[in-house]
Amino acid sequence: MRPLIAFLTDFGLTDEWVAACKAVIWQRAPEAKVIDITHLVPSYNVKVGALTLRNAALTFGAVIYLAVVDPGVGNQRRPLALKTKDGAVLVGPDNGLLLPAAEVLGGLKQVVWLTKEEFWRFPVCPTFHGRDIFAPAAAAVARGVALEQLGEKVPLRSLVPAPWSWATLKANSFQGEIIHQDNFGTVRFNITEADVKKAALRSGQTLTLATDKTVVSALLVPTFAAVEPQTPLFLVDSAKLLCFAINQGNAAQTFSLKVGQKVSLTWTNR
Amino acid sequence: MRPLIAFLTDFGLTDEWVAACKAVIWQRAPEAKVIDITHLVPSYNVKVGALTLRNAALTFGAVIYLAVVDPGVGNQRRPLALKTKDGAVLVGPDNGLLLPAAEVLGGLKQVVWLTKEEFWRFPVCPTFHGRDIFAPAAAAVARGVALEQLGEKVPLRSLVPAPWSWATLKANSFQGEIIHQDNFGTVRFNITEADVKKAALRSGQTLTLATDKTVVSALLVPTFAAVEPQTPLFLVDSAKLLCFAINQGNAAQTFSLKVGQKVSLTWTNR
Amino acid sequence: MRPLIAFLTDFGLTDEWVAACKAVIWQRAPEAKVIDITHLVPSYNVKVGALTLRNAALTFGAVIYLAVVDPGVGNQRRPLALKTKDGAVLVGPDNGLLLPAAEVLGGLKQVVWLTKEEFWRFPVCPTFHGRDIFAPAAAAVARGVALEQLGEKVPLRSLVPAPWSWATLKANSFQGEIIHQDNFGTVRFNITEADVKKAALRSGQTLTLATDKTVVSALLVPTFAAVEPQTPLFLVDSAKLLCFAINQGNAAQTFSLKVGQKVSLTWTNR
Repeated sequence: MRPLIAFLTDFGLTDEWVAACKAVIWQRAPEAKVIDITHLVPSYNVKVGALTLRNAALTFGAVIYLAVVDPGVGNQRRPLALKTKDGAVLVGPDNGLLLPAAEVLGGLKQVVWLTKEEFWRFPVCPTFHGRDIFAPAAAAVARGVALEQLGEKVPLRSLVPAPWSWATLKANSFQGEIIHQDNFGTVRFNITEADVKKAALRSGQTLTLATDKTVVSALLVPTFAAVEPQTPLFLVDSAKLLCFAINQGNAAQTFSLKVGQKVSLTWTNR
Repeated sequence: MRPLIAFLTDFGLTDEWVAACKAVIWQRAPEAKVIDITHLVPSYNVKVGALTLRNAALTFGAVIYLAVVDPGVGNQRRPLALKTKDGAVLVGPDNGLLLPAAEVLGGLKQVVWLTKEEFWRFPVCPTFHGRDIFAPAAAAVARGVALEQLGEKVPLRSLVPAPWSWATLKANSFQGEIIHQDNFGTVRFNITEADVKKAALRSGQTLTLATDKTVVSALLVPTFAAVEPQTPLFLVDSAKLLCFAINQGNAAQTFSLKVGQKVSLTWTNR
Repeated sequence: MRPLIAFLTDFGLTDEWVAACKAVIWQRAPEAKVIDITHLVPSYNVKVGALTLRNAALTFGAVIYLAVVDPGVGNQRRPLALKTKDGAVLVGPDNGLLLPAAEVLGGLKQVVWLTKEEFWRFPVCPTFHGRDIFAPAAAAVARGVALEQLGEKVPLRSLVPAPWSWATLKANSFQGEIIHQDNFGTVRFNITEADVKKAALRSGQTLTLATDKTVVSALLVPTFAAVEPQTPLFLVDSAKLLCFAINQGNAAQTFSLKVGQKVSLTWTNR
């Protein structure tokens, strides 16, 4: 099967940057297939980039990931390639962007700092490592180059940590935050399906969401259409994260919810 | 020739959903080629989705179509695969989304309800049939699986109807509506090239457009550049629909036109 | 290697037009691979289209380019295919769109007016030469058809000129203009890396940017991260153009800069 590179950036879709990276991949690994995850990560937003990459990894599995959300480009931050226990390879900057995806791909197995210049594209533009260091590394992996050839090994513990931690579960409450808002206005919390199970929450139960501005209660249901249109709801989504939404409506707008807001979620014993 | 899947959704381009569907197609039908029609159908807007799919079908012809604009996901609406008389297959929800495209692809020949679970992706996420039911069905068709194997046959007349009907022609007028607005601000009516011929309208004739807010007259011409810049015009566009536009300008903005508005178009005998 | 078509338009991503062109390429040259440069060139903006195409060409090199930003569609402007001295072929309208890219691809060698109707797609829609004349020409080139077969030769000097000229260098100043603004709010001037060298400007030097509204001084540096976050800077970017930016900020917004503004850049002797 042709090697697959799943590609995510904050480059946007108006400039030539995404295409330039694909040109390099095509020049160096013409057999590789590239699927875009998104290039509309908000500029410099490592948190949103990390979450979207993780969510995609749940479906893509053990492929090659090229991810560039890189406010520190040209600075001291290390360009990396990570191998996971499931056999995936992730290429990108050492700023936490790759770690939540690595977690769902079996966890880190090996990390390499991309120091071998023979794999770079020259002249390396100091503002465009995506084209000149990262895309060439992904193309090399697609061609079958072993990770160790791309640079020197780095201790796993030396990496910049992931851009969020998971919510804490107390008696009948989660203290967490909003880590994502999607195109439909649905917000996602730093609370996984596993956390929901640990809390013994069940479909049909009422949860109360509180921020410093809003308090709203709604049912935990399996699907949007389980409640009437324009009704709020909680559900575990396709990315295995707890969400708050309005069926056929826009929850973020209606309740003034934003990525980064602290939230508490509470419920009563049954 | 590699099988082709033309892909349309309202998923947007910021989240991982489009990529997740493509990952499934790649896993199950690696030879298939996917071309995006658009993923920027306004959220839940079956009418715009149906029109864009129909317009694309005029050029794509007998390929596989995967179309997901699905406000009823997880509800009772049936997931379907339709075969047309021209040999195209359309996969998507039973909400009228697929029918205008089926009409330009020769008309419906066979309809199957996607009930055979062996083709689904498990666990099926109740909010993401695009990834778990529809994309796998499109991939199966691309691999050569016959439609009948994907589920049970359904009577053609049982389908939810198309989201608009065509305009009515009276003496020297059409009573219709605006069914589309494009990126350049050009609006399209539910009036086809065939209707324009039936009305015996000819290039160079003056038409008058009236909504409850605006009355404007302009020439019917073959192309934008037939009138001066910033001048309004009518034409039959590349999708064989009657349009109202401003050459190098934005008609929707200038004349406050919107999808869904009722319009009358009138002309005088010559 | 499969032939590569790099594709740029102002068609936007909401309508079926980009897909329709790709369908035609797939029908006529199924082996060709298409990489999108962008389809979000502002409507009718030949200047931005020409710059983005040129910038992409710096990385793509000698491939086939299909570029359609075409306010004169259906008018008298000629549809063209250009061959460059480096072996690239550019297909698009005669409105200057292709010329800056041709310049970085070795310069013009041969120009053909796409008059041979046997290569067109019929019926030719007068508003959609992208699908019916330009995409078929690109597909023909991808299949190996020689340029001369596509139409009649045209003198190089007869072409509509490029949409901008390069800045003029005087003693300690450039008189130029802003020709691009990117997704991060960085603006680019009509001043190339070669001009910067000719002016003997060096990293660490202070430049002063003046428009009719703003005067701001900043350092010329090799990379964004060379200055503190939220600090303005000048650099030569990955497209070999002089830029003005704010590290991790938005220069266009902060300093009210716009494409088309006249600027002067000055410095003092050292």
